[in-house]
Amino acid sequence: MKLIDLYTKMKKDISYIEKELERSIDTDHALLREASVHLLKAGGKRIRPIFVLLGAKFGTYDMERIKHVAVPLELIHMASLVHDDVIDDALTRRGQLTVRSKWDNRVAMYTGDYIFAKALAVATKLENPKIHQILSKAIVEMSIGEMEQIRFFFNPDQTVREYLLRIRRKTALLIAISCQLGAIAAGADEKLSNRLYSFGYNVGMTFQIRDDLLDLIGTEKELGKPPGSDIRQGNITLPVIFALREPELRVPLLSELKRIQEADGQTDIQYFIHMIRNSRGIKQAEQMANRYIDKAIMQLKDLPDIQAKKDLIGVAHFIGNRSY
Amino acid sequence: MKLIDLYTKMKKDISYIEKELERSIDTDHALLREASVHLLKAGGKRIRPIFVLLGAKFGTYDMERIKHVAVPLELIHMASLVHDDVIDDALTRRGQLTVRSKWDNRVAMYTGDYIFAKALAVATKLENPKIHQILSKAIVEMSIGEMEQIRFFFNPDQTVREYLLRIRRKTALLIAISCQLGAIAAGADEKLSNRLYSFGYNVGMTFQIRDDLLDLIGTEKELGKPPGSDIRQGNITLPVIFALREPELRVPLLSELKRIQEADGQTDIQYFIHMIRNSRGIKQAEQMANRYIDKAIMQLKDLPDIQAKKDLIGVAHFIGNRSY
Repeated sequence: MKLIDLYTKMKKDISYIEKELERSIDTDHALLREASVHLLKAGGKRIRPIFVLLGAKFGTYDMERIKHVAVPLELIHMASLVHDDVIDDALTRRGQLTVRSKWDNRVAMYTGDYIFAKALAVATKLENPKIHQILSKAIVEMSIGEMEQIRFFFNPDQTVREYLLRIRRKTALLIAISCQLGAIAAGADEKLSNRLYSFGYNVGMTFQIRDDLLDLIGTEKELGKPPGSDIRQGNITLPVIFALREPELRVPLLSELKRIQEADGQTDIQYFIHMIRNSRGIKQAEQMANRYIDKAIMQLKDLPDIQAKKDLIGVAHFIGNRSY
Repeated sequence: MKLIDLYTKMKKDISYIEKELERSIDTDHALLREASVHLLKAGGKRIRPIFVLLGAKFGTYDMERIKHVAVPLELIHMASLVHDDVIDDALTRRGQLTVRSKWDNRVAMYTGDYIFAKALAVATKLENPKIHQILSKAIVEMSIGEMEQIRFFFNPDQTVREYLLRIRRKTALLIAISCQLGAIAAGADEKLSNRLYSFGYNVGMTFQIRDDLLDLIGTEKELGKPPGSDIRQGNITLPVIFALREPELRVPLLSELKRIQEADGQTDIQYFIHMIRNSRGIKQAEQMANRYIDKAIMQLKDLPDIQAKKDLIGVAHFIGNRSY
């Protein structure tokens, strides 16, 4: 299955969520509306709302209820992106902030705050406290994940376990609760929504591992930016952690890491990328991503054989980058 | 009444909330815990929890329930302060950020996100969706208020109405819902909790007007920093808006404002402060603050004559800076 087929099939519902997203961030405040709409129009795959919709198919599929979780989940994702931008902006300018970019950072920070809060405000229209609990806890975990990322910047001694815990918080959790909350909002039972949570969690882990892989093995054309933006920031990802375990690579990699850190990311990273691409780290990370996809699909085993189940499996395979 | 008497009387409950605040931000993440605890220990008057406690006296006073709104309200206040710091830090350094301060800014931003989300996570333990709605909407409004403040920086043509709308969002709303949610968490009826909302709203307006006045008329000793920090940032407050209406002051004030803005706040502001202190703006702002206090106290008229009512009146007078 191609993802495009799923979009085509779900077009009506996705468009409806898109309209609700626009409505949700509408405000009298011109600057805030401008920033939010810009962000919204920048697009994205809307993968979280799609998981919500598919999860909801396992219960009573009522868009008037489902939208109150589909919209918040995309908003939370958007808000976290704006806050990441505040940081990236600061970094690429190497500590030199112009008044202009300072204003942008302020606007970005408060726009993020606004969108986070809006996400919860939309969700509270569903009078189900469990949903509010799950969403607010997810934002707590995501913030911890972001702090973890900072803490481990340029740290070559981090373990695979530390990496996995970090991407769990940063990415997998939000995809997990997308599937789960879709089901809960549709009134599905707890066992089912928990299964969907586990499915989403495993898919989310693959999603981030694949994303991190792509930043190392993708071409500038595929990525829309030069590869290696993670390492420029100091973000050491799974293939790098694996490569650092190879005795013949460890010393040259450590020396490259030190050089990149001292240059605050503003240096040629070709040699670093070359070493990683030729390490066993790529293959090992791919294998780990595949294992998560297998685990994800296994979670669906006992679920009713409806079309949404096939679609979830299809999306999982798409994210796992396999073609069967 | 002095505020200290109220603290003494409520000491046990305030200490309990203090402990719960500490517990709420506890996390395995060392950096995050460090930043949050630092913030917590920095203190503050805990005025919002006090309003929650007093509001709750109008219902069934059960700390095990009340804490789930008292803690979030202080957390939301704290989170907004951390995010303000991100901005202030950037400003005082005139756009020159060192790597060190950049890291601080990141930590500040994600710590703020974490505390905002924690606030909601604590509140969702009370299974009352209305409480979650009120809290998340308040954060939405506060973010808009912050953006409004940016939009109006150094704008000499803003109206009193625009100023009032801004401080409503920035300050008054959170104090309003502190009173209201205390009552709601204690099971008081809607009419009563709405009255307490109006009381808190009016007290909150005075609170911010007084705060803005103090920044202009206070001494460095009283303020713990030189007066005029608002205008250095570009924040034009009520006395300044009034003073700009005085024909003989308008032209020299406009010219000073332009000079301060061009210097990015890094200039002598003595003459500006001198003009404001000698304008009618101070008196006019004080009168407006007093009118809000009168309105606040009027809201309590029909409420049962319990001790908490006397205490609320006492706090209102304290905030209004009157001594009877």
